Amino acid sequence: MLNLDKQLAFINELDRLKAIYRKTMVKPDNNRQENSAEHSWHIALMAQVLKDYIEEPVDVNRAVMMLLIHDIVEIDAGDTFAFAEQHELDGQEEKEIAAANRLFGLLPEAQFNEMKSLWLEFEQAETADARFAKAMDRILPLIQNMSNGGGSWVKHTVTKQQVLKRNAYLEKVTPKLWQYACEQINLAVTNGWLVDD
Amino acid sequence: MLNLDKQLAFINELDRLKAIYRKTMVKPDNNRQENSAEHSWHIALMAQVLKDYIEEPVDVNRAVMMLLIHDIVEIDAGDTFAFAEQHELDGQEEKEIAAANRLFGLLPEAQFNEMKSLWLEFEQAETADARFAKAMDRILPLIQNMSNGGGSWVKHTVTKQQVLKRNAYLEKVTPKLWQYACEQINLAVTNGWLVDD
Repeated sequence: MLNLDKQLAFINELDRLKAIYRKTMVKPDNNRQENSAEHSWHIALMAQVLKDYIEEPVDVNRAVMMLLIHDIVEIDAGDTFAFAEQHELDGQEEKEIAAANRLFGLLPEAQFNEMKSLWLEFEQAETADARFAKAMDRILPLIQNMSNGGGSWVKHTVTKQQVLKRNAYLEKVTPKLWQYACEQINLAVTNGWLVDD
Repeated sequence: MLNLDKQLAFINELDRLKAIYRKTMVKPDNNRQENSAEHSWHIALMAQVLKDYIEEPVDVNRAVMMLLIHDIVEIDAGDTFAFAEQHELDGQEEKEIAAANRLFGLLPEAQFNEMKSLWLEFEQAETADARFAKAMDRILPLIQNMSNGGGSWVKHTVTKQQVLKRNAYLEKVTPKLWQYACEQINLAVTNGWLVDD
């Protein structure tokens, strides 16, 4: 199989991420659920816009690339809710690794290695680039819910402590955005969009 | 207004690109129309995958960034079909420039300047980075239609000469992909997906 055929097989397979739906709602489009492809676009571009809020030096282009591929495994492994119960996540890691092998494995070997290691780096979040990308993934749903009357928080009766815990990740990585997130979480409680636990 | 408030206004406004629908169909999701946000994700990632097919040296990260923002103006100016009649495009350029000024203008000044000039560079396609990004924008719908029984070509009775003319852009920029496109266009005619004019 020629490299181009492999690359086109991967590009065609990507179409399926447009059919993976998340909990977050798209307000301007009749408040439908957001899919993971459009989410990946939104977050990659957001990373470019907010790159100055990270404390450590980062290669924003690497973070953008991580964000472009971070959800591809959902094509096989499905989306999991940010506030899923532990038992709902059983076996999810294995499913995602198998998905990464199959999906990135459609590519020629060098590109497979490059994409899989970038995806693993994002998952492990042990480098500055990955920590920044992860921080973006924590805060975007908060931004979306705050501009949408509480959005998925209201729909799924999410609590203040759940959102604080999920966004606490921001504290060290991007203190300014952490401060913003805390203010917004308090506002969401005041508005009745988060359960005050 | 603080920089962060401006940046968040822009990030929130981006949500509206998820409600701008194109002619291309998303086969794995009940063959619905594709929106410009998920298209922007698909094409940015495709550029990374196909970067080796460009003849000139390019900065692929700049091309990716162009592709992430190339359709944002559609939020105000709407999507135009690749095979629209000339009279349907009257005033479109002015609408898109006004849209770029309003939308990128939500950002702090330095980011406004950066994004607007990158968008203009894409539109003018006079640099290697922009030519590569443009080539991606020509070939992706062809790839999607070929994997979807002719897709939007069949639905809108598109002809071989229209697709050849649109993709002829590839010839100088990326000869290998031009050769591929020609083969696929001939196959589409054989399959009855394009009118043989």
